[in-house]
Amino acid sequence: MDYDKIIKNIYSEVKHFYPAGKVADYIPELAKVDPDKFGVSLVTVYGEEINAGDCDERFSIQSIAKVFALSMAFSVLGEKIWERVGVEPSGSSFNSIVQLEYEKGKPRNPFINSGALVICDILISKRSDPKAEFLGIVRKLSGRKTINYNLKVAESEKDHGYKNAALINMMKSYGNIINPIEIVLELYYSICSVEMTCTELARIFLPFADLKNKFSCGGFELTKSQIKRINALMLSCGFYDESGEFAFEVGLPGKSGVGGGIAAINPNQYSVAVWSPRINEKGNSALGMKFLERLTTETEDSIF
Amino acid sequence: MDYDKIIKNIYSEVKHFYPAGKVADYIPELAKVDPDKFGVSLVTVYGEEINAGDCDERFSIQSIAKVFALSMAFSVLGEKIWERVGVEPSGSSFNSIVQLEYEKGKPRNPFINSGALVICDILISKRSDPKAEFLGIVRKLSGRKTINYNLKVAESEKDHGYKNAALINMMKSYGNIINPIEIVLELYYSICSVEMTCTELARIFLPFADLKNKFSCGGFELTKSQIKRINALMLSCGFYDESGEFAFEVGLPGKSGVGGGIAAINPNQYSVAVWSPRINEKGNSALGMKFLERLTTETEDSIF
Amino acid sequence: MDYDKIIKNIYSEVKHFYPAGKVADYIPELAKVDPDKFGVSLVTVYGEEINAGDCDERFSIQSIAKVFALSMAFSVLGEKIWERVGVEPSGSSFNSIVQLEYEKGKPRNPFINSGALVICDILISKRSDPKAEFLGIVRKLSGRKTINYNLKVAESEKDHGYKNAALINMMKSYGNIINPIEIVLELYYSICSVEMTCTELARIFLPFADLKNKFSCGGFELTKSQIKRINALMLSCGFYDESGEFAFEVGLPGKSGVGGGIAAINPNQYSVAVWSPRINEKGNSALGMKFLERLTTETEDSIF
Amino acid sequence: MDYDKIIKNIYSEVKHFYPAGKVADYIPELAKVDPDKFGVSLVTVYGEEINAGDCDERFSIQSIAKVFALSMAFSVLGEKIWERVGVEPSGSSFNSIVQLEYEKGKPRNPFINSGALVICDILISKRSDPKAEFLGIVRKLSGRKTINYNLKVAESEKDHGYKNAALINMMKSYGNIINPIEIVLELYYSICSVEMTCTELARIFLPFADLKNKFSCGGFELTKSQIKRINALMLSCGFYDESGEFAFEVGLPGKSGVGGGIAAINPNQYSVAVWSPRINEKGNSALGMKFLERLTTETEDSIF
Repeated sequence: MDYDKIIKNIYSEVKHFYPAGKVADYIPELAKVDPDKFGVSLVTVYGEEINAGDCDERFSIQSIAKVFALSMAFSVLGEKIWERVGVEPSGSSFNSIVQLEYEKGKPRNPFINSGALVICDILISKRSDPKAEFLGIVRKLSGRKTINYNLKVAESEKDHGYKNAALINMMKSYGNIINPIEIVLELYYSICSVEMTCTELARIFLPFADLKNKFSCGGFELTKSQIKRINALMLSCGFYDESGEFAFEVGLPGKSGVGGGIAAINPNQYSVAVWSPRINEKGNSALGMKFLERLTTETEDSIF
Repeated sequence: MDYDKIIKNIYSEVKHFYPAGKVADYIPELAKVDPDKFGVSLVTVYGEEINAGDCDERFSIQSIAKVFALSMAFSVLGEKIWERVGVEPSGSSFNSIVQLEYEKGKPRNPFINSGALVICDILISKRSDPKAEFLGIVRKLSGRKTINYNLKVAESEKDHGYKNAALINMMKSYGNIINPIEIVLELYYSICSVEMTCTELARIFLPFADLKNKFSCGGFELTKSQIKRINALMLSCGFYDESGEFAFEVGLPGKSGVGGGIAAINPNQYSVAVWSPRINEKGNSALGMKFLERLTTETEDSIF
Repeated sequence: MDYDKIIKNIYSEVKHFYPAGKVADYIPELAKVDPDKFGVSLVTVYGEEINAGDCDERFSIQSIAKVFALSMAFSVLGEKIWERVGVEPSGSSFNSIVQLEYEKGKPRNPFINSGALVICDILISKRSDPKAEFLGIVRKLSGRKTINYNLKVAESEKDHGYKNAALINMMKSYGNIINPIEIVLELYYSICSVEMTCTELARIFLPFADLKNKFSCGGFELTKSQIKRINALMLSCGFYDESGEFAFEVGLPGKSGVGGGIAAINPNQYSVAVWSPRINEKGNSALGMKFLERLTTETEDSIF
Repeated sequence: MDYDKIIKNIYSEVKHFYPAGKVADYIPELAKVDPDKFGVSLVTVYGEEINAGDCDERFSIQSIAKVFALSMAFSVLGEKIWERVGVEPSGSSFNSIVQLEYEKGKPRNPFINSGALVICDILISKRSDPKAEFLGIVRKLSGRKTINYNLKVAESEKDHGYKNAALINMMKSYGNIINPIEIVLELYYSICSVEMTCTELARIFLPFADLKNKFSCGGFELTKSQIKRINALMLSCGFYDESGEFAFEVGLPGKSGVGGGIAAINPNQYSVAVWSPRINEKGNSALGMKFLERLTTETEDSIF
């Protein structure tokens, strides 16, 4: 398939087409990004890289980081991880906290905030320096040693993060957070603050597409079966309460972040990263979703 | 791939292995089935058919029928269908009715009961005899003219169906049911009462795997893109609040019924039907899920 | 206390003062009432009657009827009644149906619709002709034999009553409705359709204020202790999710109806009925609540 | 009425009668109290004091303190207070936090934990030393200068108070908490930790019964109308999700605490305090509720 041509065609077509959504502005650091940025990178399992637009500019990957936090914890704890977090989509966001109460502090899946906080808690219990290890993994997988946390963003998120503080306190009351709340929040906000380019993001997701090789990086390993399970979770739960819509329109496992990034994979084919800061009311990049919908329509190749 | 050997091996292995779950007994007609029945059929896109166990005995397909009701309505109404029903998983069952209230009578997806009732309402509005057409489709796709409704089951379900009556009245109060309640319920319970064998069931699901051909049957047509969207919905929403678990463990689009049947497809490979009447507490066939999990593990081939 | 002067002063003062709210229009029969009607009647335990405005015009008492349905059932079944319906306020209306689901079909109290439906179910089980008995009681207590059901209103409500149909089906699914749904709904809508004047309404509530005598009418009896318990329920639960507001602003046990009527009592003092068809967004007569608030402020005499 | 004889008779009768419930044990300081303690005090508006049992032993008044926090804030802010907290009962506890989310961070009433936290926030904004003022009020009203906070209890509650931390963070995210969370929690836990005897408790509630005099203490004043409104709130919301039951069985405005204390008032008659540490599953003193039910049954004198 001539991905180079396809990517560039869709990029040109979509670029002028879809100005909906607005930049996340709940913290000043996210609000000041240029809303018209638009970058795309696709990496095939054969090593081909196609880039378009602002693919070399770093942005805050936010919730996309949760995929790697989960990968680390899954590698360390194995199937036991599912005793503390579920694998079901969460349904609509309006009932997130009552669901947590109803289900005794066990989050529905590792990609909603409560679930990712439990994952961070697991990492703190099991590793001596998960923050450094996380950075090591994304640096190694992307081949870029300059990738780093943006501590100003992390700090600012924490200062405004009353909903997350509510969630973690609720879980603590049910005994599903072991470590001190402050320490868990610190790790959580740090990993969400990592800044990467589309190219770097596409590269670090390649292991989820490249099923011929097991995931092995920085002392963490995942079997083919485990990778497939993470892919399944991305498909079911990767886009908040728009996960069904993404599966329906795009048909690829993926994960979005409130900074406007989306990473997705097509098994045995490619990984792809898109960045456009205007997000829709569900918190997903409007242009990014459009781009990916066009990609799988054009190639007639989703997982379904 | 030697599906014949694989299917028979797994069948033998799993048969004695997993006696959990109990037969649905909320109506007498379902309760009297032999709990130890276990049948499997797999049909490849190349026409090969593999059968094992009680694959020639008919059972009540129940909610599996919703896939064909949706296919008919999607064919007739196109994208407009999504104005009346969503494409998102419903989250846990405990809040199904409050969600319906919160979302003003629009069901989350076409595979939960409220969504299937809306689909039936659409069919009644748009077709002169949807009940006969439904039967025509499953007969034609399976090649078996003796397939029929079990009106005793339909009647009995309706007599005990107070929860469904609550749901449809709630939707009617929001204007999302157009036709008289009695008529919609009659269609709904009829199509759920259809009885089929595993072989027949595997055959009628083949069009969802065989993406080289568009779905065309009995005057209803679906494009490749529409088939893929229905597959995506099966993956996200096909197993009640165990959909995430099924995606996670099995990794195939599918649909289960409370009668103990499960149908699933692997795109461009095969369709498969399993029947074992003991269902787990989420309403899905326990042995059926186990069998399919083993199948994709053994073949190392899910959609992820 | 010179209630005559007080009532007339407040009537004049309030009459021009408070034009908020709108007439209930979900059925044509209720919508066509003159929104500017305003009547008041107060009856003291010493037999004094004070009337003002449109106090001799009959209107649909609607939910106010629930107090007498409860009285009948309480008389017949005694404390056993509380096995099937609770005595707690329901909280905000948004979660009424999920609460019913969460609490296995047992309504929170006898004054929300679900609770009144259970009360009607009890009456049908225990009495041969509760519909005639209900009418007998309100006729005898008011001294007016012309009081009657408005069957056109009852019929119309039933035809539009999808939410109530949802509630009763939900309860039936939990086994808390014994009789056929149609029969229970018929009794429910009939008693809600009774039409009375303010004077008649004030008279029939006098037994709840006149604690020197036990309630005894038409073969039904309530002890002083039982009357007090019904008064407590009126205070806690008589005004939907504005019950706290009414207790807070007015401080009397009472019951409102969507037709714009309110009946209230001051123990050992008086009963009072107000009618003004414009209802606020909580379903209570806006002018009626204002009048009663002024009454207890002026007399400095609430139950608190 | 010979309250002395009545109180002592009921005390003797009830003492051996009702061993249900268990001592609150979520913090060690509360768990170590003798579960068989049982004290009663009643103070009439004429100054008579009747005491029985362990009426001179101090215990943790816990949520009973919320009545005085509310009184202070109501005095300072007047009707504006209701912009930040409601006057409606909360319904069942299971949905407390979703209700807070649904209603944008505005608690249903000042006696549930979230509401009392908002009240504390108001006091911190408006007063320079609300903690000292609170203590001044309860000391002055009781005539006992030795009443004090138990800071060990306060500290321990805070260390285990993850649910309250969840609630206050949720409200902060909606902007309904102005001051730093730590400071609000510190005030909240302090006032809940005050220790008093039944006699002292009955005395400080006398102003809510003695409606001939306005409440005036330590620079805070409440009009007769404001006192009546607080009484209405106690009746509607004073006993968590057993408020309806207490209104129904006892028929007096009152407030309970998890330490096993209950204070209640009969307007123009008396205030009464009961203490028995065994609490029922709703968090209210089992023996205390029994005692008060017997009191209003025996005297045939509730507010209804």
